[in-house]
Amino acid sequence: MPSAPSAIGIFDSGIGGLTVVKELVDLLPGEPLVYLGDTARVPYGNKSRETVVKFSTENVLFLLHHGVKMIVVACHTASSFALPFLTRHFSHPILGVIEPGVEAALAASRSGRIGVIGTQATVGSGAYPAAVSRRDPKARLTQAACPLFVHLAEEGWVDDAVTRQIARRYLAPLKQARVDALILGCTHYPLLKSVIGEVMGPRVALIDSARQVALKAQGVLKELGLTHPAHGGAFASRRFFVTDEPGHFERLSRRFLGRRAGNVSRVDVAKI
Amino acid sequence: MPSAPSAIGIFDSGIGGLTVVKELVDLLPGEPLVYLGDTARVPYGNKSRETVVKFSTENVLFLLHHGVKMIVVACHTASSFALPFLTRHFSHPILGVIEPGVEAALAASRSGRIGVIGTQATVGSGAYPAAVSRRDPKARLTQAACPLFVHLAEEGWVDDAVTRQIARRYLAPLKQARVDALILGCTHYPLLKSVIGEVMGPRVALIDSARQVALKAQGVLKELGLTHPAHGGAFASRRFFVTDEPGHFERLSRRFLGRRAGNVSRVDVAKI
Repeated sequence: MPSAPSAIGIFDSGIGGLTVVKELVDLLPGEPLVYLGDTARVPYGNKSRETVVKFSTENVLFLLHHGVKMIVVACHTASSFALPFLTRHFSHPILGVIEPGVEAALAASRSGRIGVIGTQATVGSGAYPAAVSRRDPKARLTQAACPLFVHLAEEGWVDDAVTRQIARRYLAPLKQARVDALILGCTHYPLLKSVIGEVMGPRVALIDSARQVALKAQGVLKELGLTHPAHGGAFASRRFFVTDEPGHFERLSRRFLGRRAGNVSRVDVAKI
Repeated sequence: MPSAPSAIGIFDSGIGGLTVVKELVDLLPGEPLVYLGDTARVPYGNKSRETVVKFSTENVLFLLHHGVKMIVVACHTASSFALPFLTRHFSHPILGVIEPGVEAALAASRSGRIGVIGTQATVGSGAYPAAVSRRDPKARLTQAACPLFVHLAEEGWVDDAVTRQIARRYLAPLKQARVDALILGCTHYPLLKSVIGEVMGPRVALIDSARQVALKAQGVLKELGLTHPAHGGAFASRRFFVTDEPGHFERLSRRFLGRRAGNVSRVDVAKI
């Protein structure tokens, strides 16, 4: 049943991971891609570690059934909770969004005071503090959960007085900690980049992990000699799978992907 | 495997259905109850009809495995999308929250202009307009989706300037339509009752469907001769099942149930 024998697999709790697809297409136009969005069980950010590990494992098994050569975990909650389990149990290269984001933030920071915003689950997981202290034990990390941001982005209130007010409240501890690099630790947050930037001020670098993980994927493919031989950009196959009905995903895809996702099918990953 | 041979089964997409449990305990203290909250797949309000019907069917099968005599669908989205399917395919009495809420709103309204607020899915389903026109073809219904309300309630921002501002925005079409009865068409909305009441004004009756469906359940049990014989209030067994880890559910339960839910177990209803 492999549909794209040498594709890169990407999974996310829903639609937000299309921002990673966008960057991968940009950097690696010749690579076939298989995307899985778990839209029937979205979101992951309010679920437990055990449940997120279970769902993530089902997603990985689905992508492996499609013969992918590498997997990118586009969801920050899944990366936070499940990446150690996944890399321990599967032999394929599996990349998450935590480490690339942390590396970019440390590179961008002059003061060593960096921040991260994410879901309750991501912030509670301890994954970011662990990644920061592995890389730079002297760096200081401030975290804040911003659960309403996803829903404000989905409402389309991206340039809105209410969103600005909520952003001021959520981001207060980060301003107080005087961070100079802030990781947007959830795939939806880049949609609110202008409000977040306005509240944080122009001296704070906003780190969007989608670009970072795509660069990392490019490096790993090269290192392992897995880069797709033919660079026939427009002809590379891109398949999209979702666990809820495809229509809603297709309609919203433009916001995250920059264009409408075609070739979207529904699957039930819980039954594999 | 029946654990409570003559219990009432209640299911919800998550924790909000505990408001229905609270009313059932109050009205029918001697009845054993089995509650299922699908916390691993919550929310239902942004999912498709097909997915909500599938999840609801799995929930019903789980409750039937526990030998319940009747099922109450506490979730408005599940009631909107799945109730016709469930009542057609299962022989047990299955009650939803739509009809009882509509009956109460029509009874409370003097003008015949009633309103309902709910999730995107509930509002899009057409279930409320259909129920209203079945009962009173001359009544005028105005609907509004309020997707952020659930998340504001879960943030605990129940008496808050931001919530008030969002409520004014969401409720504007209902004020404009001059409704005098408003159905709180989602289990979380009663938590925001004071802000909603403040925005709508004192002349608008707010209808909380939890009480209404409990009264309906009492009537149906009596009619079918299924009322539990012994009214040993404190001794009636109450079991709670969730699909994600029980701890979070237990901690939040007080907000919905008025006291902490004990006896909470985790189950995987997708594997039945």
